[in-house]
Amino acid sequence: MIDDRSIQDFMKREQSEDKRQHILAQGAELVHRQGFNNTGLQEILKAAGVPKGSFYFYFANKEAFGIELVDFYESQFRASATPILDDDSLKPLEKMRRIFDLFHDFFEAQGFSRGCPIGNLAQEMSDLSPAFANRLRQSIQGLASFYNTFMKQAQDEGDIRPDLDTAEAACFIVAAWHGSLIRMKVEKNREPLERFLNFVFGTVLT
Amino acid sequence: MIDDRSIQDFMKREQSEDKRQHILAQGAELVHRQGFNNTGLQEILKAAGVPKGSFYFYFANKEAFGIELVDFYESQFRASATPILDDDSLKPLEKMRRIFDLFHDFFEAQGFSRGCPIGNLAQEMSDLSPAFANRLRQSIQGLASFYNTFMKQAQDEGDIRPDLDTAEAACFIVAAWHGSLIRMKVEKNREPLERFLNFVFGTVLT
Repeated sequence: MIDDRSIQDFMKREQSEDKRQHILAQGAELVHRQGFNNTGLQEILKAAGVPKGSFYFYFANKEAFGIELVDFYESQFRASATPILDDDSLKPLEKMRRIFDLFHDFFEAQGFSRGCPIGNLAQEMSDLSPAFANRLRQSIQGLASFYNTFMKQAQDEGDIRPDLDTAEAACFIVAAWHGSLIRMKVEKNREPLERFLNFVFGTVLT
Repeated sequence: MIDDRSIQDFMKREQSEDKRQHILAQGAELVHRQGFNNTGLQEILKAAGVPKGSFYFYFANKEAFGIELVDFYESQFRASATPILDDDSLKPLEKMRRIFDLFHDFFEAQGFSRGCPIGNLAQEMSDLSPAFANRLRQSIQGLASFYNTFMKQAQDEGDIRPDLDTAEAACFIVAAWHGSLIRMKVEKNREPLERFLNFVFGTVLT
């Protein structure tokens, strides 16, 4: 039976989850733009429009908040990729390439700044916090597995050379992607991303 | 003619340069270990054992200091690579591989932490400071040119496939290196570095 009390509890939980997601969204934007250690807690509170006590109601500390940002960035990635994944007219390697194209356009719109939020946090935080490193390791391994799904399908369909260890190649491709985004950040142009695509689709996979 | 005055001036300049290099060496170690934004000026002063006024005698501000760290890291790289470069018994690609092996051993000794100090600064600072980005761009382009020297020689000697654009491949290899070091930092093992060598020497160059 649904009484007034349980409806009120439900709505409170919903509002609480909205507030939590709001703080994460504001923090995700700041951290992506300027780095984790370079973003103070005060700045996050100000952007989210919440007092310190409210932040600590949702997150144990800044590190725990940062680790939850990884989930947030992963959700953003999944949401961006879904229309491409759902397009049955595309072959596996075309899907993979479309996902990279999507990010190229995103970075171009940002003046070739920011880079991969997961790669950035991995570089910045994995020596400073084992908990952060664990979560980021899962995330980077997950990204490689995600690309490997396309690559295995493409290999079954004869679009990738049969002797390639696709799981290993997917890990190498994610590494080359993270490094190419570092180069993009210093060059501030599209060349490093185009070079990445040329070598991945023209050399590694063929 | 050398008089007492000019000998004293010479010695003062030498001592001043020693002090400057000492501050850079202490800062380079801290920044490599824990990041640029995560290292406070106070911490650098404490490690170098100098007062704030002394730091500002040598460096305009923390950003200018950070940009000079790039020179410092480059000198360290050159010093490490010199014995390999001078070994005439090695073929060009062997020299290149030895340089990567040297870094693998260094990272293993550091518990697979730190990564490339230039790649780290590029990731962390190039969106925050155009001056930093310029200097880091030079450095990363320089590293790619350095490897391209070996690769062109190897191509002339028939050890790399003749159709490869070695300058482009060198840029891709440096990007893959930087990304592989990010993966190393989250995995804390040697696998990402071995994967890097397998793909570079087994796929990209052959």
